[in-house]
Amino acid sequence: MHSIRFKNAPTLHSFAAIAGKKEGEGPYGRYFDRIEMDPALGQKDWEHAESHLQSETFRLAVNKGLLKPGEIDCILAGDLINQCTGSAFAARGTDIPFLGVYGACSTMAESLLLAAMLTDGGYCERVCAVTSSHFSTAERQFRFPLSYGGQRTPTAQWTCTASGAAVVTAGGAAPFITGGCIGRICDLGVTDAANMGAAMAPAAADTIMRYLHDTDTKPGHYDAIITGDLGKIGSTLLHELLQSQGIDITDVHKDCGSMIFDDERQDTHAGGSGCGCSASLLCAYFLPKLAAGELHRVLFCATGALLSAMSPQQGESIPGICHLVEITG
Amino acid sequence: MHSIRFKNAPTLHSFAAIAGKKEGEGPYGRYFDRIEMDPALGQKDWEHAESHLQSETFRLAVNKGLLKPGEIDCILAGDLINQCTGSAFAARGTDIPFLGVYGACSTMAESLLLAAMLTDGGYCERVCAVTSSHFSTAERQFRFPLSYGGQRTPTAQWTCTASGAAVVTAGGAAPFITGGCIGRICDLGVTDAANMGAAMAPAAADTIMRYLHDTDTKPGHYDAIITGDLGKIGSTLLHELLQSQGIDITDVHKDCGSMIFDDERQDTHAGGSGCGCSASLLCAYFLPKLAAGELHRVLFCATGALLSAMSPQQGESIPGICHLVEITG
Repeated sequence: MHSIRFKNAPTLHSFAAIAGKKEGEGPYGRYFDRIEMDPALGQKDWEHAESHLQSETFRLAVNKGLLKPGEIDCILAGDLINQCTGSAFAARGTDIPFLGVYGACSTMAESLLLAAMLTDGGYCERVCAVTSSHFSTAERQFRFPLSYGGQRTPTAQWTCTASGAAVVTAGGAAPFITGGCIGRICDLGVTDAANMGAAMAPAAADTIMRYLHDTDTKPGHYDAIITGDLGKIGSTLLHELLQSQGIDITDVHKDCGSMIFDDERQDTHAGGSGCGCSASLLCAYFLPKLAAGELHRVLFCATGALLSAMSPQQGESIPGICHLVEITG
Repeated sequence: MHSIRFKNAPTLHSFAAIAGKKEGEGPYGRYFDRIEMDPALGQKDWEHAESHLQSETFRLAVNKGLLKPGEIDCILAGDLINQCTGSAFAARGTDIPFLGVYGACSTMAESLLLAAMLTDGGYCERVCAVTSSHFSTAERQFRFPLSYGGQRTPTAQWTCTASGAAVVTAGGAAPFITGGCIGRICDLGVTDAANMGAAMAPAAADTIMRYLHDTDTKPGHYDAIITGDLGKIGSTLLHELLQSQGIDITDVHKDCGSMIFDDERQDTHAGGSGCGCSASLLCAYFLPKLAAGELHRVLFCATGALLSAMSPQQGESIPGICHLVEITG
């Protein structure tokens, strides 16, 4: 029994999402709080652009909750840039206690899980979970120089320029974080860093199965089971892995990586990826629907691929992880 | 009031530390559970060596506690390698839920703080906090190619090859984690990546001052105020920063970075550094003394420099952070 129940119903008090131009042109573009048309966000390099994106999203989430930054007891944040500098430089200057987390693209679920523990357990009153990704910081760090123009494989995903932030408080109105499950590292031996969906699908299957088992629920109990950025290939693999265990989530499954772009129009191949992909769709699309009563109960299961640019070069396969939070409206 | 009190006295049930040859030859060498004479630990590259070091330390801490890995509900781990792969590959194959944290060299204090919340709050029964560093993974990632033989500046610190792991349980015998304080990011503009102690000292001063203030205690209340890896220069700066606020910790201050090597004999300049520096001395030296009743009350304040190899090249100064846990025997 690894799943967690939160007794004091930590609340998702306020939330915000900011995305880049391409994400703004996608099928869910109109839901974002703001679209940044300048990929550099007025900064001198991509890394500062991502920090600025994250810090703006944090401020917007706090503002929307009618709070001041000084009323936040702790920021829980992480990103894909080496040593998570995207988050460290975003939080610098806020004077707010800061806990850095690293879960690759599962970071938003990990941060929300910890934020729920910190508030539910009475250690903090208000915690902000925030994460970001930027196409240009990720592409040049993990793949090719930006100007190289390498051909992308059909299984490749497109790192989103996006950020999501949510303020979790002890007590308040819906939506609530009612439960969660800490992910385990799953590695079935996928070595293709251009096929992250396949590397992460087993971890998503493992966490979803454990949570359904521990809570004695079935997929039909939820309005949506939301995965992070499995993309089209990873989503199909997730369905197959779960079906082989007698579990069918196809009716309620939504994958943020598959949702955020329109491949036919936007040439994004298997879908979107990056910490900001699921974080921004959660905060822009799903949480408002939960707050409005249009959704009642969802599982948010963000997935991460725990590789570095070097680890595949050293012959390593790609470990995946998936953290889960249950959110009720 | 940012400091945290733990009501249910989470216990440091068991702990272990493994170090490299140079650390084993230092003044505290005899306290480590094991010295690894082979810097590669029989692995094919430095990164796998560090993962192996961390995974061995985890297993030893669990064994010393008469537990099996399967009885651990969660591993909290992080390291300095890009994307924290040192920890991800160490935990792979354990089948244990995993939360990745990133606090640079403050990681052990951050992990212990979260481990205390997870167990004190009733979310987990047994959590293992573990971290590591390796001279060769850090040097080539952050500084120069290993074979380059660059001259080190007098302010430089030597990244330790070391790992520390501690199993935190809900209930049990002393030592207990009785309190904690989440660090804030402090950046006074230090840009010299070969002077980490100076970059981190303001964060250490900030956290220590906040904790003393919140708990209405003075340095004399503690048998030791243990900082992570400020080294000699950072320690002097910490004393000056605190003295300017009327606080004198010099009688009880111990800095793991200043302790772990003997500069006159080992040519390590300002001291040791790395996540494994304070983690290994905590688990090898301080926790046994707390368990034996030789120390009664300490503050463990590990410090981290939140830079990447790229951020100083982009003109950035070095943000520091310091997380604190209070441990009582």
